[in-house]
Amino acid sequence: MAGSTFGTIFKITTWGESHGKALGVIVDGCPAGLLLDETDIQKYLNRRKPGTSSITTPRKEDDQVEILSGTFEGKTTGTPISLMIRNTSQISGDYSEIASCYRPGHADYTYDAKYGFRDYRGGGRSSGRETAGRVAAGAIACKILEQMGITVCAYTRSIGNIHADMKHFDRDAILQTPTAMPDRKADELAVSYLEGAKKSFNSVGGCMECLAEGLPAGIGDPVFEKLDANLAKAIMSIGAVKAVEIGDGCQVSSRFGSDNNDAFRMKDGKIVKTTNHAGGILGGISDGSAIIIRAHVKPTPSIYLSQQTVNKQGEEISINIKGRHDPIIIPRAVVVMECMTALTLLDALLINMSARLENIIDFYRK
Amino acid sequence: MAGSTFGTIFKITTWGESHGKALGVIVDGCPAGLLLDETDIQKYLNRRKPGTSSITTPRKEDDQVEILSGTFEGKTTGTPISLMIRNTSQISGDYSEIASCYRPGHADYTYDAKYGFRDYRGGGRSSGRETAGRVAAGAIACKILEQMGITVCAYTRSIGNIHADMKHFDRDAILQTPTAMPDRKADELAVSYLEGAKKSFNSVGGCMECLAEGLPAGIGDPVFEKLDANLAKAIMSIGAVKAVEIGDGCQVSSRFGSDNNDAFRMKDGKIVKTTNHAGGILGGISDGSAIIIRAHVKPTPSIYLSQQTVNKQGEEISINIKGRHDPIIIPRAVVVMECMTALTLLDALLINMSARLENIIDFYRK
Amino acid sequence: MAGSTFGTIFKITTWGESHGKALGVIVDGCPAGLLLDETDIQKYLNRRKPGTSSITTPRKEDDQVEILSGTFEGKTTGTPISLMIRNTSQISGDYSEIASCYRPGHADYTYDAKYGFRDYRGGGRSSGRETAGRVAAGAIACKILEQMGITVCAYTRSIGNIHADMKHFDRDAILQTPTAMPDRKADELAVSYLEGAKKSFNSVGGCMECLAEGLPAGIGDPVFEKLDANLAKAIMSIGAVKAVEIGDGCQVSSRFGSDNNDAFRMKDGKIVKTTNHAGGILGGISDGSAIIIRAHVKPTPSIYLSQQTVNKQGEEISINIKGRHDPIIIPRAVVVMECMTALTLLDALLINMSARLENIIDFYRK
Amino acid sequence: MAGSTFGTIFKITTWGESHGKALGVIVDGCPAGLLLDETDIQKYLNRRKPGTSSITTPRKEDDQVEILSGTFEGKTTGTPISLMIRNTSQISGDYSEIASCYRPGHADYTYDAKYGFRDYRGGGRSSGRETAGRVAAGAIACKILEQMGITVCAYTRSIGNIHADMKHFDRDAILQTPTAMPDRKADELAVSYLEGAKKSFNSVGGCMECLAEGLPAGIGDPVFEKLDANLAKAIMSIGAVKAVEIGDGCQVSSRFGSDNNDAFRMKDGKIVKTTNHAGGILGGISDGSAIIIRAHVKPTPSIYLSQQTVNKQGEEISINIKGRHDPIIIPRAVVVMECMTALTLLDALLINMSARLENIIDFYRK
Repeated sequence: MAGSTFGTIFKITTWGESHGKALGVIVDGCPAGLLLDETDIQKYLNRRKPGTSSITTPRKEDDQVEILSGTFEGKTTGTPISLMIRNTSQISGDYSEIASCYRPGHADYTYDAKYGFRDYRGGGRSSGRETAGRVAAGAIACKILEQMGITVCAYTRSIGNIHADMKHFDRDAILQTPTAMPDRKADELAVSYLEGAKKSFNSVGGCMECLAEGLPAGIGDPVFEKLDANLAKAIMSIGAVKAVEIGDGCQVSSRFGSDNNDAFRMKDGKIVKTTNHAGGILGGISDGSAIIIRAHVKPTPSIYLSQQTVNKQGEEISINIKGRHDPIIIPRAVVVMECMTALTLLDALLINMSARLENIIDFYRK
Repeated sequence: MAGSTFGTIFKITTWGESHGKALGVIVDGCPAGLLLDETDIQKYLNRRKPGTSSITTPRKEDDQVEILSGTFEGKTTGTPISLMIRNTSQISGDYSEIASCYRPGHADYTYDAKYGFRDYRGGGRSSGRETAGRVAAGAIACKILEQMGITVCAYTRSIGNIHADMKHFDRDAILQTPTAMPDRKADELAVSYLEGAKKSFNSVGGCMECLAEGLPAGIGDPVFEKLDANLAKAIMSIGAVKAVEIGDGCQVSSRFGSDNNDAFRMKDGKIVKTTNHAGGILGGISDGSAIIIRAHVKPTPSIYLSQQTVNKQGEEISINIKGRHDPIIIPRAVVVMECMTALTLLDALLINMSARLENIIDFYRK
Repeated sequence: MAGSTFGTIFKITTWGESHGKALGVIVDGCPAGLLLDETDIQKYLNRRKPGTSSITTPRKEDDQVEILSGTFEGKTTGTPISLMIRNTSQISGDYSEIASCYRPGHADYTYDAKYGFRDYRGGGRSSGRETAGRVAAGAIACKILEQMGITVCAYTRSIGNIHADMKHFDRDAILQTPTAMPDRKADELAVSYLEGAKKSFNSVGGCMECLAEGLPAGIGDPVFEKLDANLAKAIMSIGAVKAVEIGDGCQVSSRFGSDNNDAFRMKDGKIVKTTNHAGGILGGISDGSAIIIRAHVKPTPSIYLSQQTVNKQGEEISINIKGRHDPIIIPRAVVVMECMTALTLLDALLINMSARLENIIDFYRK
Repeated sequence: MAGSTFGTIFKITTWGESHGKALGVIVDGCPAGLLLDETDIQKYLNRRKPGTSSITTPRKEDDQVEILSGTFEGKTTGTPISLMIRNTSQISGDYSEIASCYRPGHADYTYDAKYGFRDYRGGGRSSGRETAGRVAAGAIACKILEQMGITVCAYTRSIGNIHADMKHFDRDAILQTPTAMPDRKADELAVSYLEGAKKSFNSVGGCMECLAEGLPAGIGDPVFEKLDANLAKAIMSIGAVKAVEIGDGCQVSSRFGSDNNDAFRMKDGKIVKTTNHAGGILGGISDGSAIIIRAHVKPTPSIYLSQQTVNKQGEEISINIKGRHDPIIIPRAVVVMECMTALTLLDALLINMSARLENIIDFYRK
């Protein structure tokens, strides 16, 4: 079915396969009046570009975005913004091996089981390239959030067993290190760890974290549309993510209530929490503290080691995957997490405008 | 906004507060022809009833369900099924303390921040009682899945640091032990652990797991409506859940690709996986293995120890929460997880019917 | 599938059959802070009650509404409002004839074709009684619109060939005449016309109109969610409606452009139109003039004359429908049209709050 | 808000303005396995092309469609189909007059009222060009319906006061006559009528009708998602449509029940109706007869006669609209109506697959 749309009011629809002519996204419901041009979007897309270091694939993907509709005289008009990225570097190579066999850890088998056949070139729609559309749309959401005083920032928390030390948090490092870690020392360790993995033809998993600051209290909904529920869906929908944590996440399950509750206090006339185990969300609604989400990402399934699998004919075979693959997904996925978070928060903010009758009446009295 | 609806084709809408007249759910989109009466639903509701052991609240909640519409001559008609549970045991007590202060770990403050005021009696809509509607609807989904050969089973995986040993998995124990653990030995340890916590006026967190077996390969959608993304949302929308894992979950982030990929092999002419690190989902689509989900649940925020907080007037105060509270949420939440999983899987199965043109043409040729 | 929900932000879900235990509606997404009690809703329900004149069915339907959730201390809380009406006057009569045959003009055959069987008592879910839930929800929408200075008013425009003369428009007459016509003279003629039809065991069609005044310009959306498109759906979803017109409606098809365009002029510093052929909507968006909608309603299909039909066994038969039926649907449907219009307009107003970036930033700056 | 998406399972999202770089549509939820290439779509787009006769605008719009994603080896893959049409013939002319004034009958004023400003070139998003995306998507729906034995056919019923005589119904004439009338004699009269209107610088309205044959009984849903309600929305969302009729439409309001009910009879072992006043829909669900819908379309608002209006500065002015405009909208809108009908019916068919439990169990037993 139609599963390529995300959001209720700020709604995006992505399209395109890894090796098709192009891919892109429609942003429908973007408010009118935002100054927007290609450079606003391109800087986000550049963060997921490969080929920028020893630990990403040497594949070249230019990912030049083109705005096809929805802006006029440099501003958004309120109508759908169509963003397109031409696929330029696909090598129309020999896919005969992938075409007939099911790569372990990939979606080859499940797509065939669902649709009866699949576009096997480069993973088709299950390729990480699909996220280019999310990032292009997310760049717009981020720009709007910024103007509302809300910042969203994702980074690599760990790679294999190497963890960033949050005491040394350095925001600049995120965009400057090859691993997107906010800790330059951990980054160095992680790079050599990854190079080792690469030499042994293997790949590595990792954990990424996203921090959203400046979100007012009161955003999100009770019951099914809880802010954390929507964030969980948004982040789990990124390929290769296998776990999502909010605030202290998994740790809460072995804790006492007295250690887990965050006390409320007053600060500068405002209600604040003295700790933030909850990750900024209580009962599905933001509490004014920073929103904290973590995602655990599996190792790249494409490895050069020999693996056991079966082919379409139901024969058991061994395969050695060829091609140029990232030894780790995370450094390029960090911006995807940032964008999916921004899209979720912005949508929740827009939805929240109708929560109180007095606000509605005020709005239309003007 | 409207956030009380879950599902696309099999759609449920819950309503009701902890201390209102009643609560319930509308199930819209249930296929016609299912044999259904109150006992089908009651047996699920009974599993979330409190007062059945030393480790749940002594509060009495009868939770007798009434089918108000949608069945005729014992069968569902395809029209909305309205299920209602009268609230009978609320004590119209003294809520003055709760009314004016913000309990740590609860949604009191965030509701006020969103709506300007709140129904403070027993947590109102943020109460765990809201899940009665989910369970009533989920019971119907479970009955349908059963007829399709799909079983969904949730249980307690750990309480504090006491973990069920899955080598001793005993399905009967889940419904028989007070902790809903599938391991009677761990259950005993957990019960004394909980009694200790209770004596020290504290509460405890835990982890629950859900297993769905019999789901065919090919269910779920690529991109935003991935099966795991929808499960993550479904489970994270249960109050107090702070992390959701699929398959090996958080462990994948410190793993090598060679250890994490599940090999495909043939068995009895069918494609199977030799391991199930993926938890039954690849690229957002089921692969025919068991679906495995885990949820980490925070300790009950209502504890009898003194806590620091603020009141509506912005004064810093201390509170000691009175009332009758579960020292742990999980044993009664396990059936909620089972139901939310069943609802998500059934909806995905119904959506999937239109995935292939040949199936559609076949369907209407009859 | 799930087809019992209407609206995007102000969302209602109706449930219940003609002869089930009860029927009702869940209003999800009602803003917090509205003063609301049963009397607000009851006065709308009373307008669709039968038995109030010689031209409606003598059946008694009390339709006493009960608010089960969503209000606290007399105000809406922002959480789902559950409204229930117990079915009290159903006679558990002999339905054997209806059970096995397909009444002409009714949904008996189509329900069986879709679901395989149906609740045949009194039309089940296809009964006009289903609209009680719409009216209960619409009463809330009307109350909110009123507070925003928007009035919605529906009335009977014609019955058979007897037309209300709009030059004699008398708003009070709508609630006072048995036909709900705004013209007392036409009402008298229509009543004798209806009594004649009743004597010849026949039924009669009619046309109803709805006027919404005070809606600001700029409400509605381009393309698929045009305000008139949503109104058309809302009104066409009322059973027995076979045509929907906006503004001059059908007349435009035989007109010249010079006669159909409405000129813009200034009045008291505001942009106004000198005529309103468009019915208040241009390009799917309100233009500040009155919204005008008309609905053509077929004659009650239940007539006492002998009719040809078939039964479930595929035998050709003749039937004479018994029971107590309205000779015309319209007088009781007028309030349904008013409510569906109000629900559509309110939803469009809430959706519109996020149309401009500057408004969003202003909203959250406060 | 996001209003550019239509459909639940077969979901389309259109984008693009009249004078932007390009316009197009994403079709999400198209079943896998349909043979599809550009020619399938182009033949529908060619039917809305202008410049083909004396009664359409001499503007050239090539409307060459490009499939950018969603097909592989000539077949749809089940993933989003992206269709793009480059805008080639826009003259970057002098829009200063339109930019600052509000043309009567157009959406200029309402867009400004909603969004604060607008893309004034050629009507922007409110231009009839937006329907190119609908037609491109509808062509795919039509191809699928055809394979299911369902045909959808729209044509011009009347232009001004000249009506096609349905006794002379000639299906070939629809695609061959400049007016898209199914009656060649009426077409000739209408052409001279239109030439007259053109000479007097005026424009003319008309009525179009759509017939869908082969739809099985049982499609559509009770209550809000009635098949006729969704058709009404679909058709009313086409710009310039001011009224929608189903079956006998407006005529039912002056009729007796005995004349309006369609009798059921048996024919070749199947239940049929002896007449079709209902237009193929009873209680919102198809009855197996032909679906009949009519749409009344206003005269093109762009006329060359002098008109009174106001400008942005609130000054009363006169304008004479320049440019090249169709004297009538209908002949090019007929294919849009056909496509919107096809999209609505296909979506209803896909949704209907989960109506009965036995069918679901059968489906997955295979």
